[in-house]
Amino acid sequence: MLKHYSEELTHLKETLLRMGGFTEQMTHRAVQALVERKPEMLAEVQELEHQVNQLHIEIDEIALELIARRQPAAADLRFTTAAMKINTDLERIGDQAINISEQAEKLLSVPPVKPLIDIPRMAQIAEEMLKAALDAFVQGDEDLAYRTIERDDSVDQLKDQIFRELLTFMMGDVSTIPRSMELILVSRNLERIADHATNICEDVIFMVKGKDVRHQGPLR
Amino acid sequence: MLKHYSEELTHLKETLLRMGGFTEQMTHRAVQALVERKPEMLAEVQELEHQVNQLHIEIDEIALELIARRQPAAADLRFTTAAMKINTDLERIGDQAINISEQAEKLLSVPPVKPLIDIPRMAQIAEEMLKAALDAFVQGDEDLAYRTIERDDSVDQLKDQIFRELLTFMMGDVSTIPRSMELILVSRNLERIADHATNICEDVIFMVKGKDVRHQGPLR
Repeated sequence: MLKHYSEELTHLKETLLRMGGFTEQMTHRAVQALVERKPEMLAEVQELEHQVNQLHIEIDEIALELIARRQPAAADLRFTTAAMKINTDLERIGDQAINISEQAEKLLSVPPVKPLIDIPRMAQIAEEMLKAALDAFVQGDEDLAYRTIERDDSVDQLKDQIFRELLTFMMGDVSTIPRSMELILVSRNLERIADHATNICEDVIFMVKGKDVRHQGPLR
Repeated sequence: MLKHYSEELTHLKETLLRMGGFTEQMTHRAVQALVERKPEMLAEVQELEHQVNQLHIEIDEIALELIARRQPAAADLRFTTAAMKINTDLERIGDQAINISEQAEKLLSVPPVKPLIDIPRMAQIAEEMLKAALDAFVQGDEDLAYRTIERDDSVDQLKDQIFRELLTFMMGDVSTIPRSMELILVSRNLERIADHATNICEDVIFMVKGKDVRHQGPLR
């Protein structure tokens, strides 16, 4: 048991950040393996998942014990429950990265449909959003959270663009359908990673302001 | 403010159940509109979403206030944080139902690819899983939660079956590709609803036993 209350809060924050770093890395490696056609990179994604799953359980335990023993009020309580919610989103980001690595495995066993341009671009934005969301959490930076949420639109645009382009491929050559379908699913998984980053930002804003920004239409 | 602590816990439980009922109804209506080709049913899904979004905010407020003022310990604390987690899953089930209703809207403006058999079957299992998950929560019924988690496999099998069948349609007739793609996405949304029901069951088991069943491989 840690001696000081503030140390326990810091421990919770740091454990969550470590988990966030792992999920970022999982996403990055899964997409890199796909784009660079290096299946050997996929083993790393699996290994990281074990660590993410461990941390997922650990973080809930730390947070629950903190609430039970320290009975945090106001800002600290919002911080601790935000950590539990972010924990859930990070774990699901890990699941999405695993999905991508499974799709990558299938795609790397067959010739490429086309060089991948938009998928790595989409992955980069999703990863940057996740990183920014966690920075916003650590720094309690509401503005950064708002700015990050706004980037979700560009992810959605890329997703639609990928969908339209692959639809054209499929209609032009039926033999590309199974591979194109997998690529569309990869883009959907990346979209969901960006959605989770958005959810984290909303939790950060609630944590900072005690104001619920969810479901309020246009932000600010 | 309610007078008694136990009344507050009951209020939290009932509000969550009300939200759960709405998300079940949203899913049911969206799929029914698609299968029976009745676009006029889709308006109801949108209306229900507003109520779900309201309840989403309300439930977090009730839970946070309960923790802050009553400082629940052990089982009550696990119940209250489980309610917050279930709240998040329910809200996302609502999002999935909205996705389905948007896909239904597109699909109902064009002739059907085929009569839909597996999609309503998949929807029925997902809805039953959600209902059972909420029953397990209310009754603190760990066994029901375990049994419900096991049903997720049949949802995944139907998803794969739908995917393979539509792939055959697409390869046989390229003009069916856009519509088949939308149907595949509908099935993915139903899969996610079943996943959220599974997440709720895991939270119930943790709530009842204080034991974390997540990431433990085969259950029991």
